[in-house]
Amino acid sequence: MTKKNQTVFFQGESGAYSEEAAFEYFGSQIETRPCPTFNDVFQAVADSKNAYGLLPIENSLAGSIHRNYDLMLRYDLSILGEYFFRVRHCLLALSDIKIDTVRRVHSHPQALAQCEKNLTDLGIERIPEADTAGSARMLRTLDDPHAAALASRRAADVYDLKILAENFEDNTANYTRFLCLSRQHNLAENINTDDFKTSAVFSLQNRPGELFRALGVFALRDVDLTKIESRPLVGKPGEYLFYVDFVGHVDNLTISRAIEHLSEMAPFLRIFGSYPRHQITL
Amino acid sequence: MTKKNQTVFFQGESGAYSEEAAFEYFGSQIETRPCPTFNDVFQAVADSKNAYGLLPIENSLAGSIHRNYDLMLRYDLSILGEYFFRVRHCLLALSDIKIDTVRRVHSHPQALAQCEKNLTDLGIERIPEADTAGSARMLRTLDDPHAAALASRRAADVYDLKILAENFEDNTANYTRFLCLSRQHNLAENINTDDFKTSAVFSLQNRPGELFRALGVFALRDVDLTKIESRPLVGKPGEYLFYVDFVGHVDNLTISRAIEHLSEMAPFLRIFGSYPRHQITL
Repeated sequence: MTKKNQTVFFQGESGAYSEEAAFEYFGSQIETRPCPTFNDVFQAVADSKNAYGLLPIENSLAGSIHRNYDLMLRYDLSILGEYFFRVRHCLLALSDIKIDTVRRVHSHPQALAQCEKNLTDLGIERIPEADTAGSARMLRTLDDPHAAALASRRAADVYDLKILAENFEDNTANYTRFLCLSRQHNLAENINTDDFKTSAVFSLQNRPGELFRALGVFALRDVDLTKIESRPLVGKPGEYLFYVDFVGHVDNLTISRAIEHLSEMAPFLRIFGSYPRHQITL
Repeated sequence: MTKKNQTVFFQGESGAYSEEAAFEYFGSQIETRPCPTFNDVFQAVADSKNAYGLLPIENSLAGSIHRNYDLMLRYDLSILGEYFFRVRHCLLALSDIKIDTVRRVHSHPQALAQCEKNLTDLGIERIPEADTAGSARMLRTLDDPHAAALASRRAADVYDLKILAENFEDNTANYTRFLCLSRQHNLAENINTDDFKTSAVFSLQNRPGELFRALGVFALRDVDLTKIESRPLVGKPGEYLFYVDFVGHVDNLTISRAIEHLSEMAPFLRIFGSYPRHQITL
């Protein structure tokens, strides 16, 4: 998706992985706008006629970011796209020192955990901070020649830091799935192909086998589920919300029939949108 | 579960919510031991004959903590119990100042997000930190009379702070589910009741309807699923891991037959244990 002069809101500060993902997904001509919280991103997109939001929804190593699922329910935005962003942790420092002279590394606990093996092998002390880009920015004020930060390649540019090592993570299968949100809807095109995904959420009554019946709606029509996740429905003991992604477009007849069938048994059902599928090999 | 002089490992520092949960679950006579990372907790329990680990696995507002699911796969520990811990954020300060004189609050980003409405109403600036207990400890060194921290009631005791407000969270349905882990297994007792839950993980081949068939193993035997979550199997494109919890004990004939049936279609299957069900009303 290439966009020019388009405003894209992301959570975090300048140099955050979300900003790096926005440039990869939309191209370099966009104008990125940092927001302190996920909620601020949703609100900013809801308040703008033409802006996009790019939000992380799940990480292949760390799991789902449920806060953003909750906010999907609260705001009336559509999913226009998905993007699997490869998270590459860079080891950044004030000057071009040798890796074995680094004594302390600052970063978000998740980034530290994802580089655990490398940090242990090098005997580097881990100092948890609130976020990765903030840790990079902080290096300037710390003025500690043996300190480093784990953050994005972009953070090195933004805060003028040296990259001591790239791809510093222990596991290279480190992807974050981002969703592109907007007030607009996607226009249908080529809906008969398998190149689309649809995201939905529904609730079910608390009866054994109810989920089995609900999935039958898809299975009996050969519709392929790519994700399912259950969460207790807050305030309604015994009821659950199910978040599903499946292959296909809502404007396709098979899919629209499956959704109609699902609505027969689901007390609550909402479709977040159909969007081009980003196919990657994990 | 009341234990005396029992060692319980938790992640975080003194005053962490995990430590508060450990005292609630095991009783006040245990000896708690802080560990810097989740991995350290797993390793410590694996290295001890008689110790327990108490680890957060999902939060009703923030979702699953997949890191601990990954570690479950890496270590050979059993689940002996579950505990739904009600997370109550306290607003803590150095002295007994009035809430409307608080200017800045330090805490973990998740705690700040969970108190968003209250903080906005009071116009308090949010300063993200690596963890809640650490923010409480930090207040002493900051020496800022207008600063507060969001942390547990226990953190107030540990760091000798005043509690300005309790239950400061916007949403009271804030529960973290903890799992009690050990090298030992549970001994079967009253296995014919619905008072047990079993946790398992399995993979499936990438074919439409495969999950439907797998859930049929439970549905056709009237076994009630309480949780399901899919994750891409790292390194095996198109294959998924499914984490499920269901009501019943592995030593019950219906359950053992369901598991045998599931193993016919699952290339990989592991049972993490059967344990007493903690029933709460969310």
